Amino acid sequence: MLEKLKEEVFKANLELVRNGLVIHTWGNVSGKDPESGNIVIKPSGVKYDTMKAGDMVVLDPQGDVLEGKYRPSTDAPTHIYLYKQFSSVGGIVHTHSTYATSWAQAGRPIPPFGTTHADHFYGDVPCSRLLTEEEISVGYELNTGKVIAEAFEKTDPMAVPSVLVHSHGPFSWGADADDAVYNAVTLEEIAKMAYLTVMLGNTSPIDQFLLDKHYLRKHGRNAYYGQKKKK
Amino acid sequence: MLEKLKEEVFKANLELVRNGLVIHTWGNVSGKDPESGNIVIKPSGVKYDTMKAGDMVVLDPQGDVLEGKYRPSTDAPTHIYLYKQFSSVGGIVHTHSTYATSWAQAGRPIPPFGTTHADHFYGDVPCSRLLTEEEISVGYELNTGKVIAEAFEKTDPMAVPSVLVHSHGPFSWGADADDAVYNAVTLEEIAKMAYLTVMLGNTSPIDQFLLDKHYLRKHGRNAYYGQKKKK
Amino acid sequence: MLEKLKEEVFKANLELVRNGLVIHTWGNVSGKDPESGNIVIKPSGVKYDTMKAGDMVVLDPQGDVLEGKYRPSTDAPTHIYLYKQFSSVGGIVHTHSTYATSWAQAGRPIPPFGTTHADHFYGDVPCSRLLTEEEISVGYELNTGKVIAEAFEKTDPMAVPSVLVHSHGPFSWGADADDAVYNAVTLEEIAKMAYLTVMLGNTSPIDQFLLDKHYLRKHGRNAYYGQKKKK
Amino acid sequence: MLEKLKEEVFKANLELVRNGLVIHTWGNVSGKDPESGNIVIKPSGVKYDTMKAGDMVVLDPQGDVLEGKYRPSTDAPTHIYLYKQFSSVGGIVHTHSTYATSWAQAGRPIPPFGTTHADHFYGDVPCSRLLTEEEISVGYELNTGKVIAEAFEKTDPMAVPSVLVHSHGPFSWGADADDAVYNAVTLEEIAKMAYLTVMLGNTSPIDQFLLDKHYLRKHGRNAYYGQKKKK
Repeated sequence: MLEKLKEEVFKANLELVRNGLVIHTWGNVSGKDPESGNIVIKPSGVKYDTMKAGDMVVLDPQGDVLEGKYRPSTDAPTHIYLYKQFSSVGGIVHTHSTYATSWAQAGRPIPPFGTTHADHFYGDVPCSRLLTEEEISVGYELNTGKVIAEAFEKTDPMAVPSVLVHSHGPFSWGADADDAVYNAVTLEEIAKMAYLTVMLGNTSPIDQFLLDKHYLRKHGRNAYYGQKKKK
Repeated sequence: MLEKLKEEVFKANLELVRNGLVIHTWGNVSGKDPESGNIVIKPSGVKYDTMKAGDMVVLDPQGDVLEGKYRPSTDAPTHIYLYKQFSSVGGIVHTHSTYATSWAQAGRPIPPFGTTHADHFYGDVPCSRLLTEEEISVGYELNTGKVIAEAFEKTDPMAVPSVLVHSHGPFSWGADADDAVYNAVTLEEIAKMAYLTVMLGNTSPIDQFLLDKHYLRKHGRNAYYGQKKKK
Repeated sequence: MLEKLKEEVFKANLELVRNGLVIHTWGNVSGKDPESGNIVIKPSGVKYDTMKAGDMVVLDPQGDVLEGKYRPSTDAPTHIYLYKQFSSVGGIVHTHSTYATSWAQAGRPIPPFGTTHADHFYGDVPCSRLLTEEEISVGYELNTGKVIAEAFEKTDPMAVPSVLVHSHGPFSWGADADDAVYNAVTLEEIAKMAYLTVMLGNTSPIDQFLLDKHYLRKHGRNAYYGQKKKK
Repeated sequence: MLEKLKEEVFKANLELVRNGLVIHTWGNVSGKDPESGNIVIKPSGVKYDTMKAGDMVVLDPQGDVLEGKYRPSTDAPTHIYLYKQFSSVGGIVHTHSTYATSWAQAGRPIPPFGTTHADHFYGDVPCSRLLTEEEISVGYELNTGKVIAEAFEKTDPMAVPSVLVHSHGPFSWGADADDAVYNAVTLEEIAKMAYLTVMLGNTSPIDQFLLDKHYLRKHGRNAYYGQKKKK
């Protein structure tokens, strides 16, 4: 079932490696079937160089396994919760990419220091709050989804399609798995630039009107970046 | 029309990727036809791995599209303005290369900290002033060209063939598209070295006579670097 | 003798190069034959690009050469001592990988700043104490093994399968040569992230309960990361 | 003439590119013919990807061109002077490699922070003094050789086979061109590690006895690193 989506999710997982966001098995991508709401996700701990499209696991919207010879990624409950809360999301990526993870380890949101950020994220990339001991001991992966959603109470997740999970690493999402990978690659690059910017002595974000200009010329109603047929 | 120039500009765009200056579609190169003054530029938001030479867009010197099935790069008005102001320029490159962009995000010009810089840039690589809210809301890309030109009121743009646009990223230029790419690659490398130099505690530029020596032995009237037939 | 283990150790040495942990001949891998207790190790100062599996040197558990046309790695006495002290270890790696070596040169242990660390190392990666002048002048490589073992007096070496040798560089180990290389690659990545985290202003490790959660969900008795047949 | 040496010097130049020490034409290698004392050196400003072994230029020990259709590297007078002063040197490399150049731009020698340094450089890699305005205006490249030699008045250049030219970049040397490239690669790596070590808060070099141990076990009379037939 969902063979086309499995192929997409499989390839998106390999893109993480190709873009240098993932070593070993430290990442996972999932995608949602818009009709059934079922989720296709990477199996847990399987090596990228031997993994096949057919190894992807299919989950129903509650996270129960519908098909698959392997266990799903340990982070599946986080993905499932985010799909429920963020209804426009069709693909989710989790990585431990170097610079984004370092901001997460420092417990700092990434401010918009320039137009590269503003072109893709309409404001700070938030850092979720720390989980309590209770939240960690029972339902850890579900609760990780919950603190992510909490960080977006006042923010449209499609306008800022990434989060830093405190002391852990980034999650990114998008319209589909490919779009989520695109955002994960972008996040790592703006995390690196933001690191260098802070080291060079600037800790002030850009003005709101510059943020508006760049975000909206690409994503607003009157967007004029790219070709007409693009979103 | 201008098929040879399209090929040059197309290849120069791919060189940005090959040299690690650009991910996604975050860069563009243009070239000027010296006879007609027409400009060939990358189309907006088109992916590098499927782009063809024939996809390049031809603009007249006022920026109106003469040929092309795609929209030109959103930054076309900046390129057009710079060609008008900097009459010796035959190629322009815009990237979001990591280190140069970080200096731009910090709002700091790059001082000449060593002879690598002096061999290519005859003084600070300037950082343009911030645009006002008005300049951003109407004619943003044209006004970006204007603040760049402002930063060169007392500097020969051919002696310092790059600028950092404040909170945005670098533009580089040269005699043609290839030369502009050469300068963009050089800028990123000297931006990285300058970053490391500042971190190691030095914030003083080199002496003027060392700057003169290196710049002029390569670019001055009595230049003796390279082979005689070279410029 | 031990041709299969030689092949394993040979390939593991090349993995160090492929993963960017080693330039020139700056690394070595050894593996232990579980039945005889004999050790297979890289020859000293032999270039990776001409080295063959048959060039590996076989040592008995006391470190005497059983087979091999080359001298064993200069660090062989360190490997031999660690195999004696750490009975579960079946493979050992020594590198001068950039970030781990820099922490060693700074004489600082690497604290667990995030879950990437916690997934693999159950606490600080310790930095061994400095050797005395006497320990360096006689039996230097053996004494290097001794100060490593000292650093694990209260720590299970299989729970923290790496060490930073003060002013020198990292050693990693594992169930076999491949596993040791896996840990060496992981160490370099967490050393890089820890560097960036400290630069971003955080010097506090994560809470013990988060460390427990991540380490134990992967390595504890009730581990649920990965597939069932995996350890 | 000297076709074999031309081939060696040509290949050594390409090794600089392959090892990431050089972009554009920012580097040069020379080698000395031990019998005649003649020097083979890279031509000035010729691109690496079209350069051939036959393009190398042959100079006599005074620096006059014996053979070659191209001008020699602008830095030839520096090479020539160093061959005269450092009689054991058979190959010289000049690069603008990123980290070594940054130390040079900061005007700081690289202290021995660990055994990686000690294995190759028997003490600080010195930073030469600044040239005066007079030394720059007349005989600049020759005077660069002179300040390098000055920095080695009390140091054996074969024990510390590299220097940082203040505000400029590194020169490395060795028994032949290959050996010089080996030392240039090593210098860049220890420059990077030293940068990270300083950032992590350590500015004290290792103890003399650890420096002695590592340098001498590889290069001393009773060296025991590597294989017997090696130097």
